[in-house]
Amino acid sequence: MNAALCALPGNEAFAAQLGQQLGCARFGVEVRHFPDGETYVRLLDDPAGRQLAFVCSLNDPDAKLQALLFAAGTARELGASGVGLVAPYLGYMRQDRRFKDGEAVTSALFAAQLDRAFDWLVTVDAHLHRRKALAEIFAMRAVDVTAAAAVAAWIGSQVPQPLIVGPDRESERWAAAVAAPLGAPHVVMAKVRSGDREVRVEAPPLERWRGRTPVLVDDIISTGRTMAAAASALVAQGFAAPACAGVHAVFAGGALQALRDAGVRRIVTSNSIVHETNAIDASEPVAAAIRELIPQN
Amino acid sequence: MNAALCALPGNEAFAAQLGQQLGCARFGVEVRHFPDGETYVRLLDDPAGRQLAFVCSLNDPDAKLQALLFAAGTARELGASGVGLVAPYLGYMRQDRRFKDGEAVTSALFAAQLDRAFDWLVTVDAHLHRRKALAEIFAMRAVDVTAAAAVAAWIGSQVPQPLIVGPDRESERWAAAVAAPLGAPHVVMAKVRSGDREVRVEAPPLERWRGRTPVLVDDIISTGRTMAAAASALVAQGFAAPACAGVHAVFAGGALQALRDAGVRRIVTSNSIVHETNAIDASEPVAAAIRELIPQN
Repeated sequence: MNAALCALPGNEAFAAQLGQQLGCARFGVEVRHFPDGETYVRLLDDPAGRQLAFVCSLNDPDAKLQALLFAAGTARELGASGVGLVAPYLGYMRQDRRFKDGEAVTSALFAAQLDRAFDWLVTVDAHLHRRKALAEIFAMRAVDVTAAAAVAAWIGSQVPQPLIVGPDRESERWAAAVAAPLGAPHVVMAKVRSGDREVRVEAPPLERWRGRTPVLVDDIISTGRTMAAAASALVAQGFAAPACAGVHAVFAGGALQALRDAGVRRIVTSNSIVHETNAIDASEPVAAAIRELIPQN
Repeated sequence: MNAALCALPGNEAFAAQLGQQLGCARFGVEVRHFPDGETYVRLLDDPAGRQLAFVCSLNDPDAKLQALLFAAGTARELGASGVGLVAPYLGYMRQDRRFKDGEAVTSALFAAQLDRAFDWLVTVDAHLHRRKALAEIFAMRAVDVTAAAAVAAWIGSQVPQPLIVGPDRESERWAAAVAAPLGAPHVVMAKVRSGDREVRVEAPPLERWRGRTPVLVDDIISTGRTMAAAASALVAQGFAAPACAGVHAVFAGGALQALRDAGVRRIVTSNSIVHETNAIDASEPVAAAIRELIPQN
């Protein structure tokens, strides 16, 4: 395959998994920061004639974007035949409309920045809200794969008799996708949110699932407040301490502690964002998408 | 004037000076960060039909650029008749060629990002190295004004019998521009640099200027190592403790302490970057440039 993978700092492990599955070259990039805060980027291998795929998870995006865009721009200048982005976590997908006058629609503005730099994009479980597909936001070929099967496989191997629980209505489709291959039941809770951090959750009647181990699942664990409120609601109904499986380990602002305080027994995430809770490999569906985007030659 | 100024956080003081000189409206922008590190931007006034000039000094640029680009993109979406950038300090002007294979030419890539977002740019004493003018880097109208007259005025009012000293050959033209209106002599030292931080400086023969107070001047004080080495060389030659006047107070990595340790008596900078050493107002030449870019109507 004419493609090469190039991991931005912190993304080496995911790129290694991908590289193994794709059997393609791994290119190096040096990123450092001058004392004044400016970023220095150097491609360590010649991208001429290559399909170069940069691997960069875009959690905490502002700190990462310049290095990524500099690397992509340089690859193009140096004759890469194509420049792609593998962003296991994408970021900036929440603010997808102007809720108040004058607000920046950052999902569209961010997408436009990426569109200018890359020819294609693969991400895992994009956190789309009001949009249905990445094609509504991106001009380039943008493929949204799911780690639901990988999450289901982990649950199947670790949790006997699981009850799959989505912590809010938005997670319904996702909880169903995880439950299906397990042949397990799934329910979703109802979230009432006020402000960025405060969350209240209402549980549906759960008597018929008594005896099962609840597993809270979601695409993203951000502040963790929704997950924590859902866990508390389950414990209050007399269930065993729930497990919690998320794809994207954003874990902003003390999220991990909040989950533990709420009685969550075990917290696992995929390797889309490097974190101590990583236990699920999300690279397989990404590799499959890349194989379709860049046919072997 | 149909124009309005909009200061990104931290740039309010400079924008206030500018606004006073231009007699134009001041628009507000809200910038905050979500717990996961993503940036939220909201324009607080309607930019429709306005020439909107964002004021944002671009030291520590990676941390500031997303908010700035989101604000500019939103102004355009909401019908601003023009979107300009006042960046008293510009940033990313140093890496203006590929010194080693594969290096990102960040001055060009950064300029391209700004070109897409803005119609015009005004900056103060751009730190150009091998380039002669901003027009070689930017596609938009980009005006580089100098604060040399403002620096000279400060020296004239504070330092009797000054000897203007440029700390390296690159500062020659700048030292000359400061010395001219004062009718003062100027000299430049010779810098030998190794690595990002280590610096050695050689002084020319200075006997004929004995009795004068040396004032080290430069466009930018970054790590301060060059300035500090120059100050030490002057003190070693028996001169009075030098003063130090710079335009851009970047002051990376303990620069201020390094200068004080080298025997610098007084350190002043312009307000292009907010810093405790600010004593010189650089807004006047910026206001003049904006008046030419946006004729009153």
